[in-house]
Amino acid sequence: MKNTSSQIDGRAPEVYRTAAKMILAKGYDATSVSDIADALGITKAGLYHYIRGKTELLYDIMKYGLAELDREVMAPAQEIADPEARLRFMISTHANIVTRGDGAVTILVDEARALSAAQNRHVTKLKRAYLDYLRNTLEELRAAGKMRDVDTTVAAFGIIASVNWLSRWYLPDGPLSAGEIAEQITDIALNGLMRRPGPRRIA
Amino acid sequence: MKNTSSQIDGRAPEVYRTAAKMILAKGYDATSVSDIADALGITKAGLYHYIRGKTELLYDIMKYGLAELDREVMAPAQEIADPEARLRFMISTHANIVTRGDGAVTILVDEARALSAAQNRHVTKLKRAYLDYLRNTLEELRAAGKMRDVDTTVAAFGIIASVNWLSRWYLPDGPLSAGEIAEQITDIALNGLMRRPGPRRIA
Repeated sequence: MKNTSSQIDGRAPEVYRTAAKMILAKGYDATSVSDIADALGITKAGLYHYIRGKTELLYDIMKYGLAELDREVMAPAQEIADPEARLRFMISTHANIVTRGDGAVTILVDEARALSAAQNRHVTKLKRAYLDYLRNTLEELRAAGKMRDVDTTVAAFGIIASVNWLSRWYLPDGPLSAGEIAEQITDIALNGLMRRPGPRRIA
Repeated sequence: MKNTSSQIDGRAPEVYRTAAKMILAKGYDATSVSDIADALGITKAGLYHYIRGKTELLYDIMKYGLAELDREVMAPAQEIADPEARLRFMISTHANIVTRGDGAVTILVDEARALSAAQNRHVTKLKRAYLDYLRNTLEELRAAGKMRDVDTTVAAFGIIASVNWLSRWYLPDGPLSAGEIAEQITDIALNGLMRRPGPRRIA
């Protein structure tokens, strides 16, 4: 059954995840807009509610992935005053975003080569904003005397790496649930950085 | 000046790193075997000493990258009896391999989509051997009562992630040297996993 575009306003996540998975599985060149519409069971017109066409598809998926990070991690994180609690929230929420989309959006966000120079600049700016926010949180932890003497750039990239790498190994039917993995990544990262063990440390 | 193939036996690292950088910068399709030979100042015949041709190029680069890991990390690690010292050696040596090649080989090793099914199976097997060896080292640490209660799969992928991600952000003229970054990554990883702080912990 085909849906009209008015019925699919809430389907953006499904649209971008499906498109990302097809591109990863078949390659960008072999993926057509019609293929994606068919996979979603919507019309091409309905799909154009979310994307602007084949040439902009990769860029649209990247912007979607980075907007998720802004809306679900950075915006709510700003309400958390304590830097340790904020860091825990950021790592575990980010990890859950990566696993719920089976990683395809995350992998594509890091494939900037197919973008124009202007698109690449914009994507780089959005990624940089996330890195800077995470690094500022680490600087706050340091200022509060809670962090060991580690370089915050190395630490911030290490956190982003562990979370993004999930897209390459997480299996929905693996022995640990997505939530358990998010908790483990958060726990290992916090222990790696904090001067004293956090409340979750298992002594 | 062109070299004959007999003169370039020791140039394999330069050949694969140059080829990897060109593929990342220009794209696989736009990179010709002649371009790579020209960039190296060797003949096409000399280049064929290292690669088997354009269609096998990506696979040859991946196998080279994974062979480096086997030869420089896994083989010497087997001589280190203490699992903590072995883990430190593995992380810092791996990090130095990633940065010395400016990351291009590392990035290509994770782009398995261009491979045939058989090539992909072989590359996956080599990566799996590294993961398993790292995980076994973590299991030894656990058995020695030195590791916190963390999942060794999550921990092993976290280590591989932090090291591989260096390929995406390391700049040779950045504020920290490659050696300093390798040391920081090792220090953060060990602190994240160990029950008691290691000797390098800055209290």
